[in-house]
Amino acid sequence: MTTESIMEFALSKEFLERFQQALDEKDEAFIRQSLEGVNPADITALLYEFDSEECHYVFGLLPKEVDAAILNDLEEDVRVDFIAEFTPEELAKYIEYLDSDDGADILYQMSLKKREEVIRFIDNEEKASYILDLLRYEEDVAGGLMAKELIKANINWTIKQCIEEIRKQAENVQKIYSVYVVDDLGKLVGKVSLKRIILAEDSAKIADIYDDNVVSVETYMDEEEVAIIMRKYDLEAAPVVNARGKLVGRITIDDIVDVITEMAEEERQMMAGISADVEEDDTVWMLSKARLPWLIVGMVGGLLGAQFMGLFRGDIVLIPALAFFIPLITATGGNVGIQSSSIVVQSLANPNVFAGGIVQRLMKVLFVAVVNGVILALMVFGVVMMVNRNEPLAATVSIALFSVVLLASFMGTITPLILDRFGINPALASGPFITTANDLLGLAVYFSVAHLLYNL
Amino acid sequence: MTTESIMEFALSKEFLERFQQALDEKDEAFIRQSLEGVNPADITALLYEFDSEECHYVFGLLPKEVDAAILNDLEEDVRVDFIAEFTPEELAKYIEYLDSDDGADILYQMSLKKREEVIRFIDNEEKASYILDLLRYEEDVAGGLMAKELIKANINWTIKQCIEEIRKQAENVQKIYSVYVVDDLGKLVGKVSLKRIILAEDSAKIADIYDDNVVSVETYMDEEEVAIIMRKYDLEAAPVVNARGKLVGRITIDDIVDVITEMAEEERQMMAGISADVEEDDTVWMLSKARLPWLIVGMVGGLLGAQFMGLFRGDIVLIPALAFFIPLITATGGNVGIQSSSIVVQSLANPNVFAGGIVQRLMKVLFVAVVNGVILALMVFGVVMMVNRNEPLAATVSIALFSVVLLASFMGTITPLILDRFGINPALASGPFITTANDLLGLAVYFSVAHLLYNL
Repeated sequence: MTTESIMEFALSKEFLERFQQALDEKDEAFIRQSLEGVNPADITALLYEFDSEECHYVFGLLPKEVDAAILNDLEEDVRVDFIAEFTPEELAKYIEYLDSDDGADILYQMSLKKREEVIRFIDNEEKASYILDLLRYEEDVAGGLMAKELIKANINWTIKQCIEEIRKQAENVQKIYSVYVVDDLGKLVGKVSLKRIILAEDSAKIADIYDDNVVSVETYMDEEEVAIIMRKYDLEAAPVVNARGKLVGRITIDDIVDVITEMAEEERQMMAGISADVEEDDTVWMLSKARLPWLIVGMVGGLLGAQFMGLFRGDIVLIPALAFFIPLITATGGNVGIQSSSIVVQSLANPNVFAGGIVQRLMKVLFVAVVNGVILALMVFGVVMMVNRNEPLAATVSIALFSVVLLASFMGTITPLILDRFGINPALASGPFITTANDLLGLAVYFSVAHLLYNL
Repeated sequence: MTTESIMEFALSKEFLERFQQALDEKDEAFIRQSLEGVNPADITALLYEFDSEECHYVFGLLPKEVDAAILNDLEEDVRVDFIAEFTPEELAKYIEYLDSDDGADILYQMSLKKREEVIRFIDNEEKASYILDLLRYEEDVAGGLMAKELIKANINWTIKQCIEEIRKQAENVQKIYSVYVVDDLGKLVGKVSLKRIILAEDSAKIADIYDDNVVSVETYMDEEEVAIIMRKYDLEAAPVVNARGKLVGRITIDDIVDVITEMAEEERQMMAGISADVEEDDTVWMLSKARLPWLIVGMVGGLLGAQFMGLFRGDIVLIPALAFFIPLITATGGNVGIQSSSIVVQSLANPNVFAGGIVQRLMKVLFVAVVNGVILALMVFGVVMMVNRNEPLAATVSIALFSVVLLASFMGTITPLILDRFGINPALASGPFITTANDLLGLAVYFSVAHLLYNL
């Protein structure tokens, strides 16, 4: 027997071609044999290479529990189409193999009518009632993230009774990290690690060995808050309690890793001005639609800028060189704005307790802006003097640049703070929003400075 | 006894003021009492509010193992200054309470000389040799991330022998998820979950109950690759093997959560054009220095653009309205470029096996660009016709806009792919890099189109 290293099921082009051939020829033997003992996560990756009908065919050849694991692994946007191909009865069978939270995730993707049909076909009464419980919560709060499956022990039990309970639940709870300890009312009072249970005498009482220092989360806590807490306390699982302190579920770290990854992706998309969750393999139309809104915002900004500059037509005719530095001004405003907002967004994502009042924050931003603004303005002044040999132009561009750095820093700092206060994701401020606003601001400053300095 | 909810140690302004007062008055009793039983992660958050000397004082009042946990929790840039205040002997005492990987992380932050002194003071011989082992690896590969502490069992042992081993190691290994099974040569052959151990008979043999399907990582695997694997297989711990398959350590999910978080932060900073790992509470000078490089790149781009436009001075004097639409062109180019590159960066971060060849990818990007380009160009044509009533201008701006959308999409797609091929983080392409390049490209296209259309 050898270790199955992750290397051993690397998908080669050759294997994929051979597998495609087997699919075409309906070569059941090859398919069964080549997938036997392979980790479901690897089969999921493989199935992404084939079309829906082919995947359905492969599903029929695999053990039900492997199918269930694959269904759970599939990306949500792929799965929503795929599950449409199964009957409610088939889906119910798969869901019986999954933890309640994973089952609920699949049900969330169906119409209410189909949901009910599927649940009716679930034979395991406990599983069905668990899932119905979970469906009451929003998907993005602790209650929607938790599984009902967990091991709990009454504080008055002995270790022997506790092990009995583990034996009874062993099939339902795939990964046990700790046994949660509850009082007679079902309220969470602590936990015992499996390690302690193994090392304790059978006759010992839970009350004597349990740890009453347990971090729990509440059902209506936002998933991002849960992620912050589990990261802070290095937890691999967190018990979930309801408003009355009763233990109702458990959130495991794998779900939190997904939440953290999604948060990062969402932020990337916001920073890039993409307005929907798209991926490279989505359709041309979906990709275009996700990108268009912010492009239009930018375009409207550009058109407003054009109208604004129309007011200074005379200046541009007199001093055409003014036009040459428009991109310098707008680009610097955009860059400074994005830098400032992303630093604020980072602070908001890693909340230290008191990150200083807004006045302190702005004072510091101002200092940084002055340092950078002075350095950039001096450099630009030097270059324009050397290359263009035009003192009023050099003065105009460098003074405007300095002012733009200051203003863009201010805008970049204040915008995410304001968005955050109104419950809007502050990362929105690190995208085209701030660049568009700063473009307009930069143009206004630039032409105002020019107008003043040239006495136009 | 009640559950310690995470809410119970929320830091209030009142508590902080009271604590500050206690620090000023050296009120040991209050400090000890108010921190007793508090989770070290909460004490760490508290200590961020006070200066280094005050923290040092609090350290002296806490149990050594709590100090050790706090030292482990501290952010790296805070810790590097803080540890300078301790003698090698003090540091050695703290490190004895930590897992080898956490101990090594602290030692990485010291000069080689101080490292050696600290290691000499570590009384626990095994811990010292573990740490020396780990220090041989780079910090960002599996070997630098793993802890040496783990429970391993020989495949020929009985469950009773295995439990004996757990008892022996219980103090060293804080969290046991699985017992790793090795052969007589120390090679990893599988794992047994604690659940199975609890449910098995004492006389059962490991060989009969172990799971030979274990995902492992190799010592020199990059930490980001480890993160992808642990996320894919939903692992809470992964055994680490050396090139010969020998079990040498274990990586736990809490370290991987940190890796994922750091990756996201790094990417955000790259997208925002911040060139060092800074946070809002760093000094003004550090913040300025981190922001300056990309601002200068943008500035140089802007100056080059200015010189380039100088070539078209005559055109601008003749048709000053051309200048009005410069921001529209550059902003759209920038926005399209960032959108395109961020979609590619996302694909690179979630590698499906064959995401299609480069030609297919570019064809698709081209389609999306044509769709968006046509829509934007038509809108702009309409607006300029309505507002400015100038047909050649409307034609120039909209044709240039369409071309810029196409070119910027192409650049935004190809740049991260090229960077990735050369081992550079592709997220770099989603920042000021692409905007600066696209500004210049956009200007070139715009003025070329204008020159052609106006027959200048």
